[in-house]
Amino acid sequence: MKLTVKLMDIGTREVLLHTEDAGNIGVMPGDRVQILNEGSGVTVAAFVDTTTSLLPKGTIGIYRITNERLQVTDGSAVEVRRAERPVTLDFIRKKMDGEHLSKEETYAIIRDVVEDNLSAAELTAYITACYINEMDMDEVEHLTRAMVDTGERLRFHTHPIVDKHSIGGVPGNKISLLVVPIIAASGLKIPKTSSRAITGAGGTADLMEVLAPVNFTAAEVQQMTEKVGGAIVWGGATNIAPADDKIIIQEYPFRIDARGQMLASVMAKKFAVGADLAVIDIPVGTHAKVKTVQDGRRLAREFIELGDRLKIQVECAITYGDSPVGRAIGPKLEVIEALRILEGAESPGSLLQKSVSIAGMALEMSGKAARWKGAEMAAEIVKKGDALKKLRQIIEIQGGDPNVKSDDIEPGKHQFVVNAPATGYVIELNNKALISLARTAGAPHDKGAGLLLHAKKGNRVEKGEPIFTIFAERSWRLQKAIEEGRQLMPVLVEGMLLDRVPQDTRWT
Amino acid sequence: MKLTVKLMDIGTREVLLHTEDAGNIGVMPGDRVQILNEGSGVTVAAFVDTTTSLLPKGTIGIYRITNERLQVTDGSAVEVRRAERPVTLDFIRKKMDGEHLSKEETYAIIRDVVEDNLSAAELTAYITACYINEMDMDEVEHLTRAMVDTGERLRFHTHPIVDKHSIGGVPGNKISLLVVPIIAASGLKIPKTSSRAITGAGGTADLMEVLAPVNFTAAEVQQMTEKVGGAIVWGGATNIAPADDKIIIQEYPFRIDARGQMLASVMAKKFAVGADLAVIDIPVGTHAKVKTVQDGRRLAREFIELGDRLKIQVECAITYGDSPVGRAIGPKLEVIEALRILEGAESPGSLLQKSVSIAGMALEMSGKAARWKGAEMAAEIVKKGDALKKLRQIIEIQGGDPNVKSDDIEPGKHQFVVNAPATGYVIELNNKALISLARTAGAPHDKGAGLLLHAKKGNRVEKGEPIFTIFAERSWRLQKAIEEGRQLMPVLVEGMLLDRVPQDTRWT
Repeated sequence: MKLTVKLMDIGTREVLLHTEDAGNIGVMPGDRVQILNEGSGVTVAAFVDTTTSLLPKGTIGIYRITNERLQVTDGSAVEVRRAERPVTLDFIRKKMDGEHLSKEETYAIIRDVVEDNLSAAELTAYITACYINEMDMDEVEHLTRAMVDTGERLRFHTHPIVDKHSIGGVPGNKISLLVVPIIAASGLKIPKTSSRAITGAGGTADLMEVLAPVNFTAAEVQQMTEKVGGAIVWGGATNIAPADDKIIIQEYPFRIDARGQMLASVMAKKFAVGADLAVIDIPVGTHAKVKTVQDGRRLAREFIELGDRLKIQVECAITYGDSPVGRAIGPKLEVIEALRILEGAESPGSLLQKSVSIAGMALEMSGKAARWKGAEMAAEIVKKGDALKKLRQIIEIQGGDPNVKSDDIEPGKHQFVVNAPATGYVIELNNKALISLARTAGAPHDKGAGLLLHAKKGNRVEKGEPIFTIFAERSWRLQKAIEEGRQLMPVLVEGMLLDRVPQDTRWT
Repeated sequence: MKLTVKLMDIGTREVLLHTEDAGNIGVMPGDRVQILNEGSGVTVAAFVDTTTSLLPKGTIGIYRITNERLQVTDGSAVEVRRAERPVTLDFIRKKMDGEHLSKEETYAIIRDVVEDNLSAAELTAYITACYINEMDMDEVEHLTRAMVDTGERLRFHTHPIVDKHSIGGVPGNKISLLVVPIIAASGLKIPKTSSRAITGAGGTADLMEVLAPVNFTAAEVQQMTEKVGGAIVWGGATNIAPADDKIIIQEYPFRIDARGQMLASVMAKKFAVGADLAVIDIPVGTHAKVKTVQDGRRLAREFIELGDRLKIQVECAITYGDSPVGRAIGPKLEVIEALRILEGAESPGSLLQKSVSIAGMALEMSGKAARWKGAEMAAEIVKKGDALKKLRQIIEIQGGDPNVKSDDIEPGKHQFVVNAPATGYVIELNNKALISLARTAGAPHDKGAGLLLHAKKGNRVEKGEPIFTIFAERSWRLQKAIEEGRQLMPVLVEGMLLDRVPQDTRWT
């Protein structure tokens, strides 16, 4: 059917049809049509929305994402037909039925994911099926390679290339801001792509953005890394393993992180940046993604096996994941904390310790440091100020201010100090509650929002002593966070009243 | 955040936000916002689309389905916030993790389904999880009751109320057009809600619509049934078990019909119309939904058990499902065939036979006929013309022409006769290929489109003798169907050339 184009700036892969035209084409809302740009010969499939009044009969509303490849202009004519059902739906069905997918089938699905040929619901069915009917290592390898092959890759001429990854879920895990400059300062190359927070209070990309732009193409990342040894960028802008972001977004409503997809997600990015060796940080704890050391070891073995298949040397660090890393949560607060360590501060020791341990593993794997001497070497690099100097170079090459100091960065000006309601030991820091509170205060969108912990697990606090401060950029967000804090009680002090019936007057 | 309303006639549960407003609210495309109509106090959650140019900052595009409950007007102000994550996502996650859902959890999910609080992707995750981690009978019962309780119900004062259902997948299964009037003519009441074809060539509702309107409220169905003993309406308009339609639409891309959902779907509708007894027709065959008699028996036992729990007396008929029922496929062709039988024709015998068997079971269950005498009684009702008279009453009360005769109905005028390419026996009729061909010819949207089989399985045909005719309302559809028929070869004659290399000249 021939229809006249009306471009519509809506950011989805859809078209809007008059209900009668949809009936004539034989499609219902949610079905697919095939649209032919007769000038260029390009054909694009898109999902159908319908209207009876927003468009006259004979026209088709083309949404923005649909037109990215279609490239038609307002008023031009397109041929619109009912689209064939993608064959990948049969492959997804196979996985639903508990069968294993072949390499070709996985590649076909991932190509359709990258090209937005599958609806959110169809992709969710694939993810759910893979979550329930776990992928075997062959399928994970195929998925990893498919994710790599459908995106950009970096190709370095010198080796080894280093990479690191921390499994998420632990608030305040800003170690990349320390590990990357340490590694680069040692003379190794580390092109670090990182994520923005989806469920967290700040991903490494959100943090780095406080210091410099983070949106670069894959080629730019390679150039910057070749020049200064490292870069810390947002992976989403590089088009490296683009399928992964699309999968993660669909996992998000269910808070799942399917084992096979997680392995593929992490390793696809290492593989695509050309990493020869990678350190994977696996935080373990009741409130972390991985609950027990045993589970952590199992996951580590799988990372190592997948690395073997991809010819990437992998070592894993099982780390303590039941409390935040350091004391700061939220982009600016975390950057301040990381910069202070690089500037010579010795606290929080846990942050420095974790960073040099992870960096040290890479130094050892690369041969830069002798076995068991990596952490020492990393600490030395920090102590001499080389890591700070390297971070400044990275900031500069990414277009930030290389002279930035921790004191220059100002967290949110709306603050609220939460005091200990009783004297005693801090017996719990609840990761999920801390993240939720930081998000309510505005993180990661409001870079100055977040939390600063004054006491950590095991510390003794006196009644009335500050236990943490909430920071916000907007006063209404601070108010909401204060209210939420009352409910969630993310920091528990031994002997503290958990509730008071009938009336709750704590904190006010 | 306060935004100004711009109503947009797009048929989904979404809103359109300027990208900057979305950032300030803290939502991304696909996230949910909560919208408050400050005048009425009504709050509605909707999914976010974003734009940078279609709307100015400070405005919100409210799509049609979103406004069905919100009821705001163009230019009014609404308060928009990031919505809470529905708790039902945790229940869906539970099912993904292989746990059983409680009655309360299932009810909460189904309420969210009916109120469109779950996105298509979220609902798909639920369906996929239930497909892989099969529901036990408790869960199926809860699902059935939840579907009933979230929709309309009929409440009759006389009993018994009869219902029937055929598991789909067999083309040409127009038996409801015979069974309903037979039952009603016997003095029993049968308020039959039926479906439109989604993947088929014509559902009972599509067929009945050739004769009379089929869109009625639940109350109207009850009134009509009380007056003339029966009705044949489209279930989708009645708001009976509305969750079921929403679930079926999401199953459609994967061509799945999850066992638990199917049991619940069928029995919820029987329960909601107040049925005391129900006959379930389970067609079995390689090309049918149920592949073996053994599987059919197992399914029958589950229907009976679920019926027990709901206090509905259920009997199941395992029927032959490897060939079409009768010779006609497609709305008008099927109606002509059914009317002819009621008008006294004795062919196709298979259609008459199946219809009186199913109707007879209900007559026996209700006590109208003695054991093993039901089919005889049903055949007598047809023979005396009582069933035709009853169907005319049903047509009349639904607003159609009660004097309609089979000869008045004209199938598509574009026709193509396919002749036997060789002499031999018809060895296969492929259900899926026949349905696909009928759909390509235009069924069910074009009511006159479809197929008429001149030979059935086991018949001997001479070379050049017609084996089936394709009917279409539009010549281009006929052409497409002819092309597709060449590929699919839905009717195989023994000794027939299946392919000819290098050049295929059959049929042209």
